Amino acid sequence: MNQQTDRVQEQNPLSEAGNSYVVAIDIGGTNIRLALADMSGTIAARWSSSTTGSRSANEIMKLIRTGVEHLLNQTSAPLDSLKAIAVGAPGITNVDDGVVIATSYLLGWRDVPLRDLLEAELHIPAAVDNDVNVAAIGEFSDGAAKGSSDFVFLAIGTGVGAGIILNGKAFHGAQWSAGEIGYMLVPGVPDHVPGRGEPGALESMIGGEGIKTQWQHLWSADSSIVPKDATATEIFDAALHGDRLAQTLLEQTARILACAIYNMSLVLNCTLFVLGGSVGMHPTLTAATQQVLDQWSGRDHLLVVRSQLGTDAQLIGAIRLALSVTHSTV
Amino acid sequence: MNQQTDRVQEQNPLSEAGNSYVVAIDIGGTNIRLALADMSGTIAARWSSSTTGSRSANEIMKLIRTGVEHLLNQTSAPLDSLKAIAVGAPGITNVDDGVVIATSYLLGWRDVPLRDLLEAELHIPAAVDNDVNVAAIGEFSDGAAKGSSDFVFLAIGTGVGAGIILNGKAFHGAQWSAGEIGYMLVPGVPDHVPGRGEPGALESMIGGEGIKTQWQHLWSADSSIVPKDATATEIFDAALHGDRLAQTLLEQTARILACAIYNMSLVLNCTLFVLGGSVGMHPTLTAATQQVLDQWSGRDHLLVVRSQLGTDAQLIGAIRLALSVTHSTV
Repeated sequence: MNQQTDRVQEQNPLSEAGNSYVVAIDIGGTNIRLALADMSGTIAARWSSSTTGSRSANEIMKLIRTGVEHLLNQTSAPLDSLKAIAVGAPGITNVDDGVVIATSYLLGWRDVPLRDLLEAELHIPAAVDNDVNVAAIGEFSDGAAKGSSDFVFLAIGTGVGAGIILNGKAFHGAQWSAGEIGYMLVPGVPDHVPGRGEPGALESMIGGEGIKTQWQHLWSADSSIVPKDATATEIFDAALHGDRLAQTLLEQTARILACAIYNMSLVLNCTLFVLGGSVGMHPTLTAATQQVLDQWSGRDHLLVVRSQLGTDAQLIGAIRLALSVTHSTV
Repeated sequence: MNQQTDRVQEQNPLSEAGNSYVVAIDIGGTNIRLALADMSGTIAARWSSSTTGSRSANEIMKLIRTGVEHLLNQTSAPLDSLKAIAVGAPGITNVDDGVVIATSYLLGWRDVPLRDLLEAELHIPAAVDNDVNVAAIGEFSDGAAKGSSDFVFLAIGTGVGAGIILNGKAFHGAQWSAGEIGYMLVPGVPDHVPGRGEPGALESMIGGEGIKTQWQHLWSADSSIVPKDATATEIFDAALHGDRLAQTLLEQTARILACAIYNMSLVLNCTLFVLGGSVGMHPTLTAATQQVLDQWSGRDHLLVVRSQLGTDAQLIGAIRLALSVTHSTV
């Protein structure tokens, strides 16, 4: 990976005309996933690794280097076939500067110049954005929001966040934290704002951990066949199969989520909402939330759909992001 | 007002070099106000009229013609000194097409091509926007948000609406209704969405009529010296002077408003909120709302300030809008 050599090879027109690729990376709280895609966006190879024990920026860069080598080996592609790389990072990200300002959860990054690190490592143009924004880009280009220039992608897993697409572009906000809706205050959530480090009010009710906690509050041995320590997915599965207590919690979750969606629709004038994340992907939640919104007839019709790309939304969005910077200069 | 003559005069370089003006118009539910401003934005003359009995688009156009003649007479300015006109209209407005899609309250307009009507009447470039957006533009150019490229102007009068400025420009949304927050669902408002024609959930609690209704619910003869039929301003004045029941309602209003502001800050990543409108301008409300937000320390510091332009915000915003289209061609 010598800079000079690469540069010369990149300028070789024969090489340019051959197979070219981009690398997409999804950095999660516990895993990192890489994909190699051709210039049409089709995935040619994948690689993933646990990030347990390797969470500093340098350690993540090592994993990325290893992953890229694996991808190239899998496809017998030369290094100079790589034209760009893009990353979805789990935190507030300054897209202009390519800096991950802060991550919550497990990484604990502060002001990591991820784009510069990637460009210095691979000598190809790099782009970074927040993972939820990247997933929104994926649903916009290849998923449930294809053709919708204004919509909101809602990632509901352990955390709750929104990736906002306005006029066909990710909307970031003045300080790069637009869509941090885990703290939203709606009827049915605690009406106070939690301190730093605590889960947000909305997240504490409809995030994966929040739903588990709500379940434990509602649960008693004779009230449900679902165990007290059930996960959100197990609870929603049980609701689907007729468990009354699980249905109660599903309805509460759907109602609170509907309020959050409704509020965003008022502020942003968006009518399409795509649900992703481990909790958001549950089809019962989509249906129950749509049902609540359909009862509120006074405004524009709001449509709630499941992510089409599922856990690949971020990788596919990162592929699109990488393709968009293939003509940048490092 | 002959088109050909005007055009010729507009092209006269001596006339161009003389005093040039723009006309700004604020169409309200019960009044129409006009201002004549020079090319620096300084108001040279004003005119206003009740719109009672004159609410159709044609009748409003007649009032505008009368008002423009008065303004020109007041300043002895010739018709060809007018270079552009802009209007803030009380409804959802398609800025690209210059069409007022719908007004609530008293006008009852549907799809009125206001920009075309103005240009046909005056033969100068015209611009239209929603009145709250226009007020936001005013606060941005000359008021409390000068120098802040991202902020929200909140008009709290009988109705409640937000004018959103992002990256120095009014944000309209895909269907021109971004910021219609009168329907927002926050803790403390009725947790159902009202039907068409009914006031929104947020508006029913913190709008002028909503506050009066809340007061009547709380009020009893021995609980306050303020009369049962007091206005929001009278109630907030009484709170300022120590009336306990009025303070209770002020605190409730501030808390609900703080929730709405907080939610908007999460979605939009804005930290500055300018309060306008007859209720919003009350200094006690600004202070009480800021106090609630200051207690919520977990997030970015949010700043709530009163409108500096007050009832002139819309006229001054319309002046800026008119100045911005002076070089357009009709």
